[in-house]
Amino acid sequence: MQILVIGIGAGDPEQLTLQAVAALNRADVFFVLDKGDVKQELVDLRTEILQRHATGYQVVVGRDPERDRSSTAYVEAVDDWRRRRADVCAELIAANLGADQVGAFLVWGDPSLYDSTLAILDDILARGELSFEIEVIPGISSVSTLAARHRVPLNQVGRPVQITTGRRLAKEWPDGVDDVVVMLDAHTAFTAHLDQDATIYWGAYLGTPDELLIAGPVREVAAEIEKVRAEARERKGWIMDTYLLRRS
Amino acid sequence: MQILVIGIGAGDPEQLTLQAVAALNRADVFFVLDKGDVKQELVDLRTEILQRHATGYQVVVGRDPERDRSSTAYVEAVDDWRRRRADVCAELIAANLGADQVGAFLVWGDPSLYDSTLAILDDILARGELSFEIEVIPGISSVSTLAARHRVPLNQVGRPVQITTGRRLAKEWPDGVDDVVVMLDAHTAFTAHLDQDATIYWGAYLGTPDELLIAGPVREVAAEIEKVRAEARERKGWIMDTYLLRRS
Repeated sequence: MQILVIGIGAGDPEQLTLQAVAALNRADVFFVLDKGDVKQELVDLRTEILQRHATGYQVVVGRDPERDRSSTAYVEAVDDWRRRRADVCAELIAANLGADQVGAFLVWGDPSLYDSTLAILDDILARGELSFEIEVIPGISSVSTLAARHRVPLNQVGRPVQITTGRRLAKEWPDGVDDVVVMLDAHTAFTAHLDQDATIYWGAYLGTPDELLIAGPVREVAAEIEKVRAEARERKGWIMDTYLLRRS
Repeated sequence: MQILVIGIGAGDPEQLTLQAVAALNRADVFFVLDKGDVKQELVDLRTEILQRHATGYQVVVGRDPERDRSSTAYVEAVDDWRRRRADVCAELIAANLGADQVGAFLVWGDPSLYDSTLAILDDILARGELSFEIEVIPGISSVSTLAARHRVPLNQVGRPVQITTGRRLAKEWPDGVDDVVVMLDAHTAFTAHLDQDATIYWGAYLGTPDELLIAGPVREVAAEIEKVRAEARERKGWIMDTYLLRRS
């Protein structure tokens, strides 16, 4: 058994690599976990990618377990969620993937950044009931896409850049870095830093026809981003955004 | 005039995105800066990419100015180098790119990470003598490739990851992060942190047939990495490596 974890880019099907296209072709079974509040546009986009590039394949859909969002113990809640997702995936794999077949998980962006697929597969392997090889195909992340669309580098010359979460940025600006990229921000954490002499490069639905981009001094454009973000979220029912905060 | 800045991946031509392939096709003129100590394998790989994907194109080669590596003022030395590179590029563009043509720079990895092409183009635009639009095509970075080849995520659950330089890591482990990715390390800075309870995921020539991968507790595998790295460098005449240091 082999499982491919394929990065499929931030939302533009043209961001697929030649390697990812070949991997889509190699896979016999695609495993998909769908949330209750599934974002139909993302499902459609994934279907389009499969129809365009995969051949002779089967799609197996499992129900993504709910995450306990009431818990204040973030890491524990995520760990628990991952274990329950691993339960679902282990069952899907055992029931649908033959010994000489190739399975695949498609991952938005890059499997190396804030994605749990690799942790889920490691969890399954650690249980010892299933055995498979894992191959990871890197993808274009929303972070790379953000920088490309704003035509800026992520780092300043010889300086570090930190990728972090909204939850952490809301508490404090990280030590020792002037360039901070935020993924997974449900609450516009940049508004906690309007006292900083910083530029924000913000983007939502990156790589898709609905892409939104705003850049400027954070204290001048924060209100505009909040407004645009709230309207877009209302209109589409969901939002995925990311941003770079740069202190000069 | 339009200038495309095209990320071409870490070294495996299969890492090109469909978007990059289309961009290679759109470009009329490719601009290349070659160093005196040019790495022939990388030039060959670039040529292979152009021959395979570009059509009806012209390659214009300029001489990359020397960087003052004796200077202790790192940022100033890099700034000065960038200005002199901008001089060379401005001349190449002015002399070779027609008003309705599309020029392109190919960038290893992703143009957003530790690459000076965007800064050079901004510098040229700021001089006001040339005017062009810039479009950036994101690429698979060596960082994403490293994580993919080791089949690990870059971040731990809900935790930040910092991308930094060997020069900085040699001085100290950065504050507030347990996951540190190092690019541009000429001097195995990880050896300054053998006292840490950390795992290193190291890779060189990522995505190429010469790829080298070593992972393990940093204090146990540091000597092996140093040995393998020195031998590879001796054998091939150059090395490009990157690594993730993870404290649990």
